[in-house]
Amino acid sequence: MASRPDAPLMALALDRPAEAETNPAPLHRQIYDQVRDLVLAGRVAPGARLPSSRTLAGELGCSRNTVLAAYDQLLSEGYLEGQRGSGTYVSRVLPDQLLTAASEGPSVQRKPIDSAPPRLSRRGQGLAGLDRGPRGRRGEVRAFQPGIPDLDAFPFDVWGRLLGRIWRRPELVLRRHGAAGGHRPLREAIAHYLRAVRGLRCDWQQVLITSGAQQALDLVTRTLLDPGDRVWIEEPGYPGLRGPLLAAGAEIVPVPVDGSGLSVAAGRARASDARMAVVTPSHQYPLGVVMPVSRRLDLLDWARTAGAWIVEDDYDSEYRYGGRPLAALQGLDTADDGGRVVYVGTFSKVLFPSLRIGYLVVPPDLVEPVCRARAALDDHPSAVVQPALAAFIEDGYFAAHVRRMRALYAARQQALLDAARLRLDGVLEVQPDEAGLHLVAHLAPDLSARMDDREASNRAARAGVVAPALSSYFLSAPRSIGLMLGYAAVREDEIEAGVERLAAALARDRR
Amino acid sequence: MASRPDAPLMALALDRPAEAETNPAPLHRQIYDQVRDLVLAGRVAPGARLPSSRTLAGELGCSRNTVLAAYDQLLSEGYLEGQRGSGTYVSRVLPDQLLTAASEGPSVQRKPIDSAPPRLSRRGQGLAGLDRGPRGRRGEVRAFQPGIPDLDAFPFDVWGRLLGRIWRRPELVLRRHGAAGGHRPLREAIAHYLRAVRGLRCDWQQVLITSGAQQALDLVTRTLLDPGDRVWIEEPGYPGLRGPLLAAGAEIVPVPVDGSGLSVAAGRARASDARMAVVTPSHQYPLGVVMPVSRRLDLLDWARTAGAWIVEDDYDSEYRYGGRPLAALQGLDTADDGGRVVYVGTFSKVLFPSLRIGYLVVPPDLVEPVCRARAALDDHPSAVVQPALAAFIEDGYFAAHVRRMRALYAARQQALLDAARLRLDGVLEVQPDEAGLHLVAHLAPDLSARMDDREASNRAARAGVVAPALSSYFLSAPRSIGLMLGYAAVREDEIEAGVERLAAALARDRR
Repeated sequence: MASRPDAPLMALALDRPAEAETNPAPLHRQIYDQVRDLVLAGRVAPGARLPSSRTLAGELGCSRNTVLAAYDQLLSEGYLEGQRGSGTYVSRVLPDQLLTAASEGPSVQRKPIDSAPPRLSRRGQGLAGLDRGPRGRRGEVRAFQPGIPDLDAFPFDVWGRLLGRIWRRPELVLRRHGAAGGHRPLREAIAHYLRAVRGLRCDWQQVLITSGAQQALDLVTRTLLDPGDRVWIEEPGYPGLRGPLLAAGAEIVPVPVDGSGLSVAAGRARASDARMAVVTPSHQYPLGVVMPVSRRLDLLDWARTAGAWIVEDDYDSEYRYGGRPLAALQGLDTADDGGRVVYVGTFSKVLFPSLRIGYLVVPPDLVEPVCRARAALDDHPSAVVQPALAAFIEDGYFAAHVRRMRALYAARQQALLDAARLRLDGVLEVQPDEAGLHLVAHLAPDLSARMDDREASNRAARAGVVAPALSSYFLSAPRSIGLMLGYAAVREDEIEAGVERLAAALARDRR
Repeated sequence: MASRPDAPLMALALDRPAEAETNPAPLHRQIYDQVRDLVLAGRVAPGARLPSSRTLAGELGCSRNTVLAAYDQLLSEGYLEGQRGSGTYVSRVLPDQLLTAASEGPSVQRKPIDSAPPRLSRRGQGLAGLDRGPRGRRGEVRAFQPGIPDLDAFPFDVWGRLLGRIWRRPELVLRRHGAAGGHRPLREAIAHYLRAVRGLRCDWQQVLITSGAQQALDLVTRTLLDPGDRVWIEEPGYPGLRGPLLAAGAEIVPVPVDGSGLSVAAGRARASDARMAVVTPSHQYPLGVVMPVSRRLDLLDWARTAGAWIVEDDYDSEYRYGGRPLAALQGLDTADDGGRVVYVGTFSKVLFPSLRIGYLVVPPDLVEPVCRARAALDDHPSAVVQPALAAFIEDGYFAAHVRRMRALYAARQQALLDAARLRLDGVLEVQPDEAGLHLVAHLAPDLSARMDDREASNRAARAGVVAPALSSYFLSAPRSIGLMLGYAAVREDEIEAGVERLAAALARDRR
């Protein structure tokens, strides 16, 4: 011990609270980590003797107990051997090849002869490579980002009070493991709302809470589809569908949307044997077309004949500014074959986007199997949000909020139409819409002679204006149609300023 | 109109608040629903004239405006035709075949010639048919239900206060669309904890928040596996693994667990080309075995050579009652090939089961693709819980709670051991364990001569005692080993009473 031949090996350094910017690890953990790293890197050979705890403590200026704690841990994990008092050694039982491999340097040499498989699976590569479209973007809300409600108008004071009240003294049912379908009072509140306002036929058991429309779709596709099954989707349509369909191994069949929504005739011609059609009949995403009853009945007829499922995404049904909304397609599904419609809804566009609560309404005979599948894949929805949301609906805050937002968004849509009439004449033809949170702006002939909608969208982006190209919502054959202008989250003065910037960005050069 | 020839057709009935047990739908909605049903069922023929609004209002004893509201809706949806004043008729444009089909009666006749495809996909049938084992059961907590923390000990007063404080005036970052990986302060708090306490090598970006270990596994299997890829799982092991692996189309390879955990040699012999191994090295589920460092290094060596992934499920690492815990396997993954270990953790067993917050720690090069895959499948985790949990950890409540629970659960384990020594001698051999929330009770020779562990478990259940058979945690070749006795959620007096009932249930008949 006098010559301390092993001292250079143990070039350890401790990071003390006074020196560190953030909380450092405890001293014994720091010693443990550094010795372990030296052993694993092969920089201390198996069998080498370590400095005594007293010596190392002296070198590091810490207590001997600190070093002993680290050594004890390393001994118990098998990095070191020996007993206190008789010397401590690097263990000889670590697999040699691993120590060698870890010290060899560049990874090139360490790969097995067969070149390594890719780190992601093919499915993983597909999922990671998806462009979810403009709805997936984060950051500050800007004119005219679509799909976002106003972030300041939600009554957070009420929301915080409800959360606090419920969770300071939660009932047992909230603390213990929950039901896969969700918290019963929330399911009841949603079922009541859907029956009264959207014309659904359902009882509360058919309502299954999810963490959003995305998870609802992911659950449905995995439960109802096998790899290779064909699925009609709307063209153009919601980009977020592609993830769940890709993950389920489904074959996507884009079906064109006409003035009455998804063309059932085109769908039959392309894939009459499809197993599922995903539609937005109340307000087609992104074009805003409403599917009339005759088309809905035709779609249902196809589904019954083909034994296929209709997934009805009623994504922004709460926002209607004129006329009476059509009831949901689900309410038409009266046949006695158990029902062919699975209804999907979300609160993200009504309350606030980070809430992440959606729901499925499934036919009665699917309740049990879908709940079991959900339990197998994601247990049950968190109990933290559900009772607060149930109370928010039951106590009337939900209805009041929707009413206030209808007035606010109607005024904003009007402001956008007014500003567009003043500044975008001959450039964009902005169509009014009785529903939703965005408007469709077709390229006027003068503009479309100069550029396509992607170029228009890019120019807008360079001017600080978000205006997604509608062509980006096509999967198979993009068509340059126009731009999507979201207005719900944008104040009226910002709408005017945004339209001004957009007009400048799309004007003829050097005019 | 005098003879009202169509009156019998419109045999409508209104459900008024005073008569109804629950909130009825608005009157105009009730009229709408009933007329629509008559039309869809073919009980009013296309072209048939409807009673005037005045007539129907008189019959139903409601205001004419109520009937007009219903008729307007039915007109706008295309069920009815005509103008106010000139008579109202059932629409002729509804697809005939559908009306016929809907009125034909029993569904047998309505099925297409080819027998209808099954309502669930094969994958859906598999998922719905999974037995998740005793951990998935709901209801009152009873002795000796495993996998559940004490439901009364959590400081809900603090939790409710944090939720209320944060959400009464939430920062913008909490209101807007969140990051797929989760809320940064929570990711930082978890990364700090894992580095200091579990010896992980990670920065906060590598920590991805999920809605629990189950979703974490579901995300990893879909991102890293393709259908047909082989996966080692522990035998016996965690039943909840089967859902994500089945959904991913993986081929499950059960690998026996010996006294050092999963046998890497057996895994190599059965499927050296597997793409993934899922292990619980710190405290094997359900047996409690600890995987020593040499075995861990061997497993890592296999993974590097095979280009495979190790998923480390550190499911109850917080609860240790003696000795020092082994650091996580992830911390050993020092090679420069980017890392082979994906670490999975959950808060369900530390805080309360309905919270549903877990996390993944992935190698740096997987952060971006796994976040993108998560965004494509389930957007981002809810913002409601995350900031409260971050504050709970940062403010020291988490560490204090874990310390209190360690003392509480250690005492409960001792109570179980004491009661078992008194009452179960010669029946069950209950082993102490330095960690976890349950004990393994082997059948004593006298008992195993009389019954296997399923029979013992069934007898316990009939006596009101939950004691899952360990054989139910085997996938390929169940072996009768013993029972699993969870003690964490059970008060000491209930532990004694439970052991007494268990002893009676397993005693020789008519002794």
